Amino acid sequence: MHVRGAPAIGATGAFGMCLSAFTSGATESQQLVGELKQAKQVLDGARPTAVNLSWATAQMVALAEKLTEDCAEITVDQLRTVLLAEGTHIATEDVKINKRMAATGVEVVPSRSRILHHCNTGSLATVYYGTALGVIFEAAVQGKCPFVYVDETRPRLQGAKLTAYELLERKIDMKLIADSAAGYLMYTNKVDLCLVGADRVCANGDVANKIGTYKVAVCAKENGVPFYPVVPTSTIDLSLKHGSEIVVEERSSEEVTKIEGTWIAPVNCPVFNPAFDITPHRYVTGIITEEGICYPPFNLSLRKAKLAAEERLAVERDQRLRALIESLGLSHT
Amino acid sequence: MHVRGAPAIGATGAFGMCLSAFTSGATESQQLVGELKQAKQVLDGARPTAVNLSWATAQMVALAEKLTEDCAEITVDQLRTVLLAEGTHIATEDVKINKRMAATGVEVVPSRSRILHHCNTGSLATVYYGTALGVIFEAAVQGKCPFVYVDETRPRLQGAKLTAYELLERKIDMKLIADSAAGYLMYTNKVDLCLVGADRVCANGDVANKIGTYKVAVCAKENGVPFYPVVPTSTIDLSLKHGSEIVVEERSSEEVTKIEGTWIAPVNCPVFNPAFDITPHRYVTGIITEEGICYPPFNLSLRKAKLAAEERLAVERDQRLRALIESLGLSHT
Repeated sequence: MHVRGAPAIGATGAFGMCLSAFTSGATESQQLVGELKQAKQVLDGARPTAVNLSWATAQMVALAEKLTEDCAEITVDQLRTVLLAEGTHIATEDVKINKRMAATGVEVVPSRSRILHHCNTGSLATVYYGTALGVIFEAAVQGKCPFVYVDETRPRLQGAKLTAYELLERKIDMKLIADSAAGYLMYTNKVDLCLVGADRVCANGDVANKIGTYKVAVCAKENGVPFYPVVPTSTIDLSLKHGSEIVVEERSSEEVTKIEGTWIAPVNCPVFNPAFDITPHRYVTGIITEEGICYPPFNLSLRKAKLAAEERLAVERDQRLRALIESLGLSHT
Repeated sequence: MHVRGAPAIGATGAFGMCLSAFTSGATESQQLVGELKQAKQVLDGARPTAVNLSWATAQMVALAEKLTEDCAEITVDQLRTVLLAEGTHIATEDVKINKRMAATGVEVVPSRSRILHHCNTGSLATVYYGTALGVIFEAAVQGKCPFVYVDETRPRLQGAKLTAYELLERKIDMKLIADSAAGYLMYTNKVDLCLVGADRVCANGDVANKIGTYKVAVCAKENGVPFYPVVPTSTIDLSLKHGSEIVVEERSSEEVTKIEGTWIAPVNCPVFNPAFDITPHRYVTGIITEEGICYPPFNLSLRKAKLAAEERLAVERDQRLRALIESLGLSHT
């Protein structure tokens, strides 16, 4: 929990792989690739719900494997150089992707919208800018004057501590609310749309996100309020058909029983503390990605967005690799 | 907020009227009645949402008016004695009513039920025993082994601080949860029924209760989980047709931005902090009262329960009054 926010976790995972490469005692490239695979397993286990982590570590392993296959003579040091370049690329790419999501998502934000936001999805959850908050920032930049109701997001209070801070810094109108007030705000016609991030999106559009997202989505549907997760395509996990296949992380009791070190419940009070919940796709209006907005049927639209992103990334990666191989003076085998 | 819980607020209101009578400088009974009417207005203004307050103060005023009409010679001191007896009666009656609600409500609690509970409705919200928690206590007494998921109930944390304590004291199995987890628990089939209290119930069955009750009710309906408010008939306000007529108290920003004196949000962060919300009757399975369980159509069933209680109370009050008048040596005029 030193790093939070699915995209930030992804970038950190990539640099974790770099760290593993640079501290390795491997003398041969093949050996380093083997160690990277082990490092990936350790890193992936740190946060099971956010798919961006295993996505980023998989990118790094795939790159190392491809290079050792394609360039037989590549040294361990050369491989390290390439991995660091790739990690840096994943991080900087996150900012570009966020800006693309923001440009896309802002279309569904009418002028003077009152937006409900859950958890934190801004610069403090990504490398920079953000997912759902990125869309809100963009709406503000475009003069749409958004107003944001900020769910405080118990137990860890990411809304109160991080989102409130990011919005106030950018002078965007907002009010902080207890999570319990969100549904009632929608019932009393005070919310025009809901924007959230996500930690994993299944092939059918089921969404894993911070605990409390489910109740936001249910109350939104009940009151005819559009509900949009904003995610990079790296958060889409087509290998999972349904939300029920997602592993939901449970966290310590003390996140609930203590706030800033002060007990707010009886000592040793039993607690159930799931960190995430699953929102079934029937509550989801659309999923905003850097490849456009995916609407139902999600099985089709998400696959299309994911493929488009992967094709683009593959072309770009190929170009980067070619340039790197050339700059390192290596030859294809 | 030194007193909380609709029934406890009602009893305190009755004693507030006694305090007004005992500290009054009135020399004539009629004068005291006038002062009591003023005191009622001040007291009622303290907590606009809970109807039990104005119900109890109205009982006290009606009694004083009736006595000064019926017994022309009644002195100020005699009136004080009667008012104190009536205040004490309202308080002790609350315990009896809670026990009757518990005996009634326990019927809808199957053995080994997993119950979701919001806010606090036990001995710390009533004179003793409780409304929704009273039903749970009774289920435990009857060996039904209830298990309770306790909503922590931000912003004031009545669930974490009070309900968790009351359940642990009685050795009833429970787990504390962030409010945001309640809906997801229902979605994953971990909740068999929801029990809550209420601060005011309208003629049509719309229910005002602690903020967050609405989202519990919506998620309950969405997942086929029964949702029952447990209330004394004094909480039913037939003068209000719809929930939209209920005044919802808003409270200070610092309830949300600070916990136990520690800031958990940026200083001066704007806040929206409604203390209560309105749950439309379409989400309510039944309303448990001391006169039985009211089911839809609520316009009929609530009126019936209210009338039954008022008839019973009128007969009992008449008997008490007669006994008091006799013991004071007064004669009817």
